[in-house]
Amino acid sequence: VGPPKPILRPPGGGAAGEDAAVQRIGTRLAHVFGSAGPRERWIGDDAAVLALRDDLVVTVDSTVEGVHADLGIISLEDTGWRSMSRAMSDVAAMGAEPRFALVGVCIPPEYSLDELYEGLIEAALRHNCPIVGGDLAATPLLSVSVTIGATTPGGSPVGRDGARPGDELFVTGPLGAGAAGLRVLRAAGKVEPGSDTRALADAYRRPRALVAEGRAARLGGASALMDVSDGLGIDLHRMALASGVGVALDALPVAAGATRAEALGGGDDYQLIIAAASRTRLEEAFGREGLALPVPIGRCTDDPAQRELDGEPLPASGWEHSIG
Amino acid sequence: VGPPKPILRPPGGGAAGEDAAVQRIGTRLAHVFGSAGPRERWIGDDAAVLALRDDLVVTVDSTVEGVHADLGIISLEDTGWRSMSRAMSDVAAMGAEPRFALVGVCIPPEYSLDELYEGLIEAALRHNCPIVGGDLAATPLLSVSVTIGATTPGGSPVGRDGARPGDELFVTGPLGAGAAGLRVLRAAGKVEPGSDTRALADAYRRPRALVAEGRAARLGGASALMDVSDGLGIDLHRMALASGVGVALDALPVAAGATRAEALGGGDDYQLIIAAASRTRLEEAFGREGLALPVPIGRCTDDPAQRELDGEPLPASGWEHSIG
Repeated sequence: VGPPKPILRPPGGGAAGEDAAVQRIGTRLAHVFGSAGPRERWIGDDAAVLALRDDLVVTVDSTVEGVHADLGIISLEDTGWRSMSRAMSDVAAMGAEPRFALVGVCIPPEYSLDELYEGLIEAALRHNCPIVGGDLAATPLLSVSVTIGATTPGGSPVGRDGARPGDELFVTGPLGAGAAGLRVLRAAGKVEPGSDTRALADAYRRPRALVAEGRAARLGGASALMDVSDGLGIDLHRMALASGVGVALDALPVAAGATRAEALGGGDDYQLIIAAASRTRLEEAFGREGLALPVPIGRCTDDPAQRELDGEPLPASGWEHSIG
Repeated sequence: VGPPKPILRPPGGGAAGEDAAVQRIGTRLAHVFGSAGPRERWIGDDAAVLALRDDLVVTVDSTVEGVHADLGIISLEDTGWRSMSRAMSDVAAMGAEPRFALVGVCIPPEYSLDELYEGLIEAALRHNCPIVGGDLAATPLLSVSVTIGATTPGGSPVGRDGARPGDELFVTGPLGAGAAGLRVLRAAGKVEPGSDTRALADAYRRPRALVAEGRAARLGGASALMDVSDGLGIDLHRMALASGVGVALDALPVAAGATRAEALGGGDDYQLIIAAASRTRLEEAFGREGLALPVPIGRCTDDPAQRELDGEPLPASGWEHSIG
């Protein structure tokens, strides 16, 4: 028998094979994250094996070139970082702490897999979250799917549906930096280190998942928790809808350099929205961890239809995908 | 404040928004899979929460239009089914049983999300595996990433690295049907029900993840286990490499209608390769479950460089992605 022809060929065609790339990345991951615990298996088999002791909080988030990441203005490394942080933000928004990540990479052969992985690794390392597995395919368009498994040691995850009338509402920080960063990057192209707009650009390129803040919110008695990924208006609307409450805001903290519209409707912020019955208890939990105190923005009300900011209607807009 | 402009817009643009689509799919999933257990959360929050009692076996697998799924010859429903089965096969290949799935869908606005989901649901239902979460984005190219969480109740997962010299090698059934099915579909276009080639076409369109067989292999004392996703040659080579053994095959079971080359090098088979020290114990476990007995194909040897079929070199070929 001669060597059989491959049944399918991915478009393009780099030099090295999938196994070689998987092995190279696997070696790098083992170097960075160390090795699996007893009974565990990380990279290198059909699936990874994890020994977790708590309930599992799990999410998947896809980052697609041209939709969630514009490679004209951010690097592949930034894209890796963003992909990891976006998924981590989803578990931070449950008050959970990341335990492992799986990464599915679909990448055009002419892109650098290693550059992408450096960003993924850097963002995962910030939270000591090992990348334990994943898959790899050559495709015409870059897309990265990140699965995060997380736990809430000694407690329960905090959903978006637990807010009650009378609870105070908070955000973990001023809003709009991500959207303003995207605007700045689009206007200026690559931004030089040290420039005035660098902080805004970094908010877009290298968003931080607020894992410590989510944990503090959970320990501080948050009744509901979610992240601002699509814009305060739409995300607060989602929390109010899930909880069956209204919202009346009296403050909108705007990040330096961002506009009020960006703070209200811009995506890519990843600040957390917190509802809590006791401001004192919440602030104590943040204080204990040395974190900046959450910023009060208003209250939950008992009229489930109410959506107000300073007595005016709060627009439930933001970034929504159009899908039929 | 007027309603702010969305920061990014996905290409295309269907009628309904992301939330509406998520809600529609969520309702369908709740109807099909019932509701979460106590302490659990499925669809509808930032992340899902699962209460599992065993170690977690977890994998992610991406299916991309034009690379892993040719929409000229299979339907969106088939593509959903294939995406789910491919990921499930990875946990079957650890001897594990699926407990939950997360689905990341990147879909062009003109495609039917519901059709895709019907295939995903049907394949998940075969193994009572609830789809508990996921995400959704509008993109120019269809890609589906499926994460499966699984467990091995009362036992440990079986890796690919445990084969020992002297172990017998088996496959769960004849090989090449997936590759032959793809050939048939490419030649004939859509295949009518009842036609001679329907069984082959279905092997490609609707592959079965061999979860019961993987479980039987684990309970039957398999020393190593993996699935034939890229072709027997390359996958057996991977098992031999991980285990540090050689392989000497004396049989190649070829599926009816498939060629020898398709059996040896064709991907998309999803049969399992099993190494085991005791054929009797393995057969007893398969017999207890009423499963067809695994087919012996050869032995593991103590020369780690050996790769032979009937005394001739065994080509380590198959489908590998080209990634630099």
